[in-house]
Amino acid sequence: MPPRVLCAAVQRAFDAATAVNALGDGRYRARIDEGWDIGGNANGGYLIALAARAIHDMVGRPPLSVTAHYLARGRSGPCEITVDVARAGRRTATAIARLRTDVEVILVLGTFADQLPGGRTIIDSEPPDLPPFHDCVRTVPPVANSGFGERVHVRIRPSDAAFREGRPTETGEVSGWFTFDDAPPDEQRFDAFGLLQAADAFAPVCFNRSDVPLAWAPTLELTVHVRGVPAPGPLRCRFRNTFMQNGLFEEDGEIWDSAGTLVAQSRQLALIPRG
Amino acid sequence: MPPRVLCAAVQRAFDAATAVNALGDGRYRARIDEGWDIGGNANGGYLIALAARAIHDMVGRPPLSVTAHYLARGRSGPCEITVDVARAGRRTATAIARLRTDVEVILVLGTFADQLPGGRTIIDSEPPDLPPFHDCVRTVPPVANSGFGERVHVRIRPSDAAFREGRPTETGEVSGWFTFDDAPPDEQRFDAFGLLQAADAFAPVCFNRSDVPLAWAPTLELTVHVRGVPAPGPLRCRFRNTFMQNGLFEEDGEIWDSAGTLVAQSRQLALIPRG
Repeated sequence: MPPRVLCAAVQRAFDAATAVNALGDGRYRARIDEGWDIGGNANGGYLIALAARAIHDMVGRPPLSVTAHYLARGRSGPCEITVDVARAGRRTATAIARLRTDVEVILVLGTFADQLPGGRTIIDSEPPDLPPFHDCVRTVPPVANSGFGERVHVRIRPSDAAFREGRPTETGEVSGWFTFDDAPPDEQRFDAFGLLQAADAFAPVCFNRSDVPLAWAPTLELTVHVRGVPAPGPLRCRFRNTFMQNGLFEEDGEIWDSAGTLVAQSRQLALIPRG
Repeated sequence: MPPRVLCAAVQRAFDAATAVNALGDGRYRARIDEGWDIGGNANGGYLIALAARAIHDMVGRPPLSVTAHYLARGRSGPCEITVDVARAGRRTATAIARLRTDVEVILVLGTFADQLPGGRTIIDSEPPDLPPFHDCVRTVPPVANSGFGERVHVRIRPSDAAFREGRPTETGEVSGWFTFDDAPPDEQRFDAFGLLQAADAFAPVCFNRSDVPLAWAPTLELTVHVRGVPAPGPLRCRFRNTFMQNGLFEEDGEIWDSAGTLVAQSRQLALIPRG
């Protein structure tokens, strides 16, 4: 099967669910798709990708560094995205996007650019050590009616998954595989938008802390830096928490491709779940 | 001396240099102060603090999570800041600020709030191990005419400072003390704006990588999460790089107060310096 057909076959549902229609003057009509919710609220990685698509349409470059602040739950249905391009230079473009339903849902600030040409490479980390994809534990969000849990395919390392039986590892770490559900893992082709989605698709790392309820951990802020162009295949992801204090925890993510290259880094600041 | 007088005495030059004057409708007149430059360009931590002051004036709360994208060098002189408050809730307020001289200099997206009430505290890190303040090495930026190098007082751990003699540690780490220069270290009283400044005041961590010229490392994006209210005294700071690739490096910061509490986390994405 020629690569081009493969390319068209993957991320398909995700691409369709993050499509935007230009109305002119930086305004976009879009839809928060029904299928990307957790208990009726759109997933945060899906929402940042949706807003990023509108910026991409304006500036013609993929996301390089994107930050979202989450203001209200994203209920499925029509939405409007407005994009304000502050600067479009030779290599990079920087813009603000605001996504609204009947209320303002997220604000996004991002710089969009292709990966810069090479130079020095120094890596002081390694991809997470994961059992094969199908030996990991498929997890779905701990609420009913999660369309999101069907459309993404997250497989957590078994040693990180015991929080589901009430035995958190206390490490504050959750690692595993990420793919979309509409193609076999080895046929996945991720673009930078798929990386934005992968950065907020796993169970919150605080689930591997003791005495934290397995409930919604509302994201206040999410930043994703795209650091490479993924090779084909599933993504290896590691999420870690170091500081839980004053009602908040950060979640630091590393996303590696199948060739062992770091392709994205993320950090989010979220509220510790309440019972 | 009563604490109130002490409070008034510290951060004084910084407070004055980040003052903003409200013009109404979210517009502010301010000044990129002459004294906070490195070779004629305002420091990035100073600029994010200046923009944050304008948001603070609008929403009456200190910064909690702030992201800046840097579009152009900030030359000293008058500037205008426009603030757009997207949401002001009971606890948090989220806003966009844009700082312009004759060109747009930075875009800022931030959520402003007092620290949230307690809850669980789990800390998997420790403050950097630093020799006493005056046993560390005072560093100034490697360019002439650095007002910034006089107004902040950065003291790098001697073992991290040998890059100045052409012997980088290869660790990608720079740790040390941060204070302002207009009060003795033990009399420092930092607020959240001072933490924003501290997050971008040290020599770039890439200076402790081999074959990286000691030259300007332009910041593309800087995010600071304020995680606590600092106790009096100087700040202990650790900055680290893990991934240097595709022309970019990230710099992760931890800022600890004199009582050993983490008070801020930062991450920036910057361009590897060219000779």
